[in-house]
Amino acid sequence: MEYLEQIGIQAKEAEAVLRTLGSEHKNLALRKAAEYLVKAESTLLEANQKDMDMAREKGMAQGLLDRLALTGDRIRSMADGLLQVAAADDPVGEILNMKKRPNGLMIGQKRVPLGVIGIIYEARPNVTADAFGLCFKSGNAVILKGGSDALHSNEAIVAAVQRALADCGLPEAAVQLIAGQDRQVTARFMKMNDYVDVLIPRGGAGLIRSVVRESTIPVIETGTGNCHIYVDASADLEMAAEILYNAKTQRIGVCNACESLVVHEAVADVFLPMAAARLGDKKVELRGDDKAMAAEPSIVAAGEEDWGREYLDYILSIKTVRNIGEAIAHINRYNTGHSEAIITRDYANAQRFLDEVDAAAVYVNASTRFTDGGEFGFGAEIGISTQKLHARGPMGLKELTSMKYIIYGNGQVRP
Amino acid sequence: MEYLEQIGIQAKEAEAVLRTLGSEHKNLALRKAAEYLVKAESTLLEANQKDMDMAREKGMAQGLLDRLALTGDRIRSMADGLLQVAAADDPVGEILNMKKRPNGLMIGQKRVPLGVIGIIYEARPNVTADAFGLCFKSGNAVILKGGSDALHSNEAIVAAVQRALADCGLPEAAVQLIAGQDRQVTARFMKMNDYVDVLIPRGGAGLIRSVVRESTIPVIETGTGNCHIYVDASADLEMAAEILYNAKTQRIGVCNACESLVVHEAVADVFLPMAAARLGDKKVELRGDDKAMAAEPSIVAAGEEDWGREYLDYILSIKTVRNIGEAIAHINRYNTGHSEAIITRDYANAQRFLDEVDAAAVYVNASTRFTDGGEFGFGAEIGISTQKLHARGPMGLKELTSMKYIIYGNGQVRP
Repeated sequence: MEYLEQIGIQAKEAEAVLRTLGSEHKNLALRKAAEYLVKAESTLLEANQKDMDMAREKGMAQGLLDRLALTGDRIRSMADGLLQVAAADDPVGEILNMKKRPNGLMIGQKRVPLGVIGIIYEARPNVTADAFGLCFKSGNAVILKGGSDALHSNEAIVAAVQRALADCGLPEAAVQLIAGQDRQVTARFMKMNDYVDVLIPRGGAGLIRSVVRESTIPVIETGTGNCHIYVDASADLEMAAEILYNAKTQRIGVCNACESLVVHEAVADVFLPMAAARLGDKKVELRGDDKAMAAEPSIVAAGEEDWGREYLDYILSIKTVRNIGEAIAHINRYNTGHSEAIITRDYANAQRFLDEVDAAAVYVNASTRFTDGGEFGFGAEIGISTQKLHARGPMGLKELTSMKYIIYGNGQVRP
Repeated sequence: MEYLEQIGIQAKEAEAVLRTLGSEHKNLALRKAAEYLVKAESTLLEANQKDMDMAREKGMAQGLLDRLALTGDRIRSMADGLLQVAAADDPVGEILNMKKRPNGLMIGQKRVPLGVIGIIYEARPNVTADAFGLCFKSGNAVILKGGSDALHSNEAIVAAVQRALADCGLPEAAVQLIAGQDRQVTARFMKMNDYVDVLIPRGGAGLIRSVVRESTIPVIETGTGNCHIYVDASADLEMAAEILYNAKTQRIGVCNACESLVVHEAVADVFLPMAAARLGDKKVELRGDDKAMAAEPSIVAAGEEDWGREYLDYILSIKTVRNIGEAIAHINRYNTGHSEAIITRDYANAQRFLDEVDAAAVYVNASTRFTDGGEFGFGAEIGISTQKLHARGPMGLKELTSMKYIIYGNGQVRP
């Protein structure tokens, strides 16, 4: 039998077991998996060393090498992640909206696992453990296709987890890793509609675009964030400068970092020098339109291509606008549907921004950096959805479930 | 500018207006659209006559001609559908799960339109009005690609609706019809990710498969139903026969009709002759396995291909099983995730069937024919989703919306 099909069949078999598993049994397996990961430290580090050696030989960039590297601390942090998921509430089994119809049928919705989840990601071994934990706790079987540069590390992690599952009397196929290195395997994986219910790409914009384009399985798009902060004419400018500084520089290279400042022209002359001074701390390069450049000499000219850029770097684009309508239109034109903020003292403008800006998370007077499962109070997340179907924003355990209708009758037939 | 891109841009512009429209304004436009459809009866019938003439010339089958035909009654029924949608609750704007985080941020979810919805359907003019009504009431712009055999009818319907929108000061591009007849246009439409948020195919299995395969836009899969009724050893057999008769024959050719009977072998000898007698009323052809044939002489042999068939005809497949586990395994292997029922008096078996059968709607002691927006109490539906992402089961107005996070802060930055 073909390799991928076998993986698919095994995942379906595991799914049937996971679907009805009690929370205590799942939590036991998660704690055991955490224990086995820590115990396997030397095996994991050895496997990772192989990957690191090969990656260095290939001349992998330092930033990518850093993401690929495992250390004792990072292994303990993966294990802690599994313990946290074990401690979280099990979303499966919740019954919602049960009501009695006039014909006596009782109709309600029950929260159930999605089934089999496919995750396609880059060479970051920690995603292997994280993705397993979230999918397993929500009752799903998971098929992982990690970046081939992390193959040895991923195999070692999956082996430790599978031993824990076996020790708990559970199917090892609850988590499977696709070992094939070639692109053809990934391409076929993305068309396994008979076996996989949803595909979640985790990684850069290029990876996500290719999955959206090629997959015939339903995809949840995650990640890219061209996030804006709009400073309204009525804004508390000190607050605005602090929020901007936080959203831009607290962590570079994350999807909820601010990439673009939109500022009302009535306050540009005062605010832009303040913002430039504050961001100067971190040597942020400022690229603006003509009015922005006139207000603050350190700002250089932005090109049209700057408005759509997710820099993930110490660069900020700056657009001046005549009114809030222009600000909203600019944001809705260039944003990626992630996180957007307005800084204002005006009640009507705050409400209008919340209503009209089209994004997963819209803020008044706060940093876009809060768009995160932990900060929203959901615990760990599998990613931040920037699409509108199924889940929008941080996706935690609940977002890895579906609802099915359950109907209790006593002989009803349709007239 | 390219034709489809222009349609996309106009839809996005309309979406921005619809997103913030009040319910009363929307209801006014829906009532006006209903009025204009009825007033345009002669224009509609004339346009439909053109389509019917061309279809007859092409030798279209009688069943398809019947679906293509408009009559005065059918036009009034489309108008009534719009009035019902006008009377339904507006799902947009509902705020859920608002809570205060320890840092003082107030985080909640607000129900918002999906944005731009694409509908691809066959030559059924009534879908044109229905789809517009549901998408418009839920605040979405809609782009319709109907079967080319219904083009004149669809154009006349859309023209009447657009006049109503214009009279209410609303953008006509809230509903647009793609006029291009060739397949290339449809293929390009399915890749317009920049303009279309979700694509809903409505029609037969072939249409749906091709949209799932070709679209890069998120798709909601609807429709196909290989629905089973499992008669347990403890079933009330009179009730089972009535429910089976209803689910199989009350309406042939619909997705929630029963296509397959699964029966516990302990009751096969008694039940199958009862079922054969009851279904004999409608001359239903029975195709079963060996044990079924032994129990009732009118049953002919089923082949492996019968288990996966959605007959949409007076044919029923019959599988005997030794226990409920086998019944569940058979159903989960061959079903299409639509509607499944158990007939039983046994408490544990009822709960087990509800837990383990993987489908949008799972019934105890009732007919599968109830899977329907109206019967579930949601009003009109855009289709019945058989996938697990976003919406499962009948999709009404609420299922045409998304949730966005809204966050009220007072200067919070991420530590």
